[in-house]
Amino acid sequence: MENFADRLIAKIRQKNSCVVVGLDPHFKLIPDTVKQKPIISHKPSLEYAARVILEFNIQVIDLIAPHVGIVKPQIAFYELYGWWGVWAYAETIKYGKYKGLIVIGDVKRGDVPSTAEAYADAHIGEVHIDDIVETAFAADAMTVNPYLGTDSLQPFIQTARKHNKGIFVLVKTSNPQSGEFQDLTCGKKKLHEIVAEKTNEWGKDLIGKEGYSAVGAVVGATYSHEIELLREIMPSAYFLVPGYGAQGATVNDIKYCFNSDGLGAIINASRSILYAYNTSPWKEKYGVKAWKYATQEAIIKMNAEIGDMLL
Amino acid sequence: MENFADRLIAKIRQKNSCVVVGLDPHFKLIPDTVKQKPIISHKPSLEYAARVILEFNIQVIDLIAPHVGIVKPQIAFYELYGWWGVWAYAETIKYGKYKGLIVIGDVKRGDVPSTAEAYADAHIGEVHIDDIVETAFAADAMTVNPYLGTDSLQPFIQTARKHNKGIFVLVKTSNPQSGEFQDLTCGKKKLHEIVAEKTNEWGKDLIGKEGYSAVGAVVGATYSHEIELLREIMPSAYFLVPGYGAQGATVNDIKYCFNSDGLGAIINASRSILYAYNTSPWKEKYGVKAWKYATQEAIIKMNAEIGDMLL
Repeated sequence: MENFADRLIAKIRQKNSCVVVGLDPHFKLIPDTVKQKPIISHKPSLEYAARVILEFNIQVIDLIAPHVGIVKPQIAFYELYGWWGVWAYAETIKYGKYKGLIVIGDVKRGDVPSTAEAYADAHIGEVHIDDIVETAFAADAMTVNPYLGTDSLQPFIQTARKHNKGIFVLVKTSNPQSGEFQDLTCGKKKLHEIVAEKTNEWGKDLIGKEGYSAVGAVVGATYSHEIELLREIMPSAYFLVPGYGAQGATVNDIKYCFNSDGLGAIINASRSILYAYNTSPWKEKYGVKAWKYATQEAIIKMNAEIGDMLL
Repeated sequence: MENFADRLIAKIRQKNSCVVVGLDPHFKLIPDTVKQKPIISHKPSLEYAARVILEFNIQVIDLIAPHVGIVKPQIAFYELYGWWGVWAYAETIKYGKYKGLIVIGDVKRGDVPSTAEAYADAHIGEVHIDDIVETAFAADAMTVNPYLGTDSLQPFIQTARKHNKGIFVLVKTSNPQSGEFQDLTCGKKKLHEIVAEKTNEWGKDLIGKEGYSAVGAVVGATYSHEIELLREIMPSAYFLVPGYGAQGATVNDIKYCFNSDGLGAIINASRSILYAYNTSPWKEKYGVKAWKYATQEAIIKMNAEIGDMLL
């Protein structure tokens, strides 16, 4: 298997899209037509919610797979339904991979080294039970939190190397108060700039044929001013960019996430694609019953917007 | 239901112990006598590993419950076995609560606000599915990562308030390189001191009758020099202190975690209790077959050591 960044770039070229669809299921927003499908139980329960979520994800993946090559389930929205929800998370990853997509587990894990090793093995590695080898979630990549330092990230980096997987380090997050700690000035640099320097270092030994590393960075589209400098500090890191769409960032905000080769960033949208039926102009045009048309048009529109900007 | 800190203190007094037993199952280290118990499947598989882990936890909880009032399952070691592992995690929490223990979910979650809300509801809150209310994991408290800032922690704080649960914010972690970012000097203070100040603020509205807050802090026993100042910055935060035992910290290192009232800290040990059979003097005395005696003596010894220090 190839270096993760090379696989990512090949997929971006194949689909002609650098969009990541965030699979963030909100039970309330899932159309009733989907909810009627799971036959095992129609009574509200954790199992029922999990089955609905999986059915929704399968329908979404079928819809978007011709247009995008990357999906990113956010595990929080699955943990919400307990271990049944985590079952739906695991099955979603499986289905995404079966459809040829690259799946990024948005899990934002981080812990002391021995624990980080278990997280890495769980999400992008493998587990040994007596004489057999199994995989728990087997995503292609995962997001990680850097607060605990280099030794806490080494297990993720080593597991990524061993299995040709990727990691994305939280550098500058998209939420309104991300600057509270991330923008603190430490000496002459901001904390997130120091984390960016380290991320660049962590990725140096994992650079693929295309010049990009399997160690990427999460950089919020909502902080367009910081992006140029971060691109400079981490020239070979792939940026995973949240904040587009529902969180307010536009195509102008993400311009500097890309290198001059037109590569270097994947742009995430979740709610604005999954629940496009709920926003203009599709709300008026289609409504919830024809949600699939809304989602399909939303993804095609987002591809076109970013494609035009990259021309 | 009472404020989490008041419940915690009542439990500490009831058991006369401020020890937390970390339920970190390592499949390889679980004694064979335990492995032979789960009858559903004896073939190595994720399900089998999860059933073994749950059986081990039940036996450990039964052993330690007369001596300690708090357990802390580390979810990484359950995620390692996929959704089956997460099932064992959920069942472990249930069993711990059934035996009257306070259960801290060591999950170190942290994300943008809308996602953090899902994590909070999953681990210490509740979830609404149509017209029913369910709980996913329902621990008494959870650990959280502060890197994303105040808005990312508000959902945890609000959920803790609503359900009388607790949170423990990672302030200064126990791993060797925790200082890499956490000790950076920002202005006149170290990053972890600034996080400590915020943690103290976040907890101000959640102080119980005993003067302690439901917003606590994770402070590694391995950094005894930092502890005195952190105790001063966060006078009403309960400290969850990892690093005792297997990670090398001793009773002298944790002295300053406590206030003069003998309260203010709970001390975690995982491997040194669960796998006591594997360390001296119990290795020689009992060996793996009599692992229960080793675990029991180890917990009694740890209680005594800390009890003597607090006299």
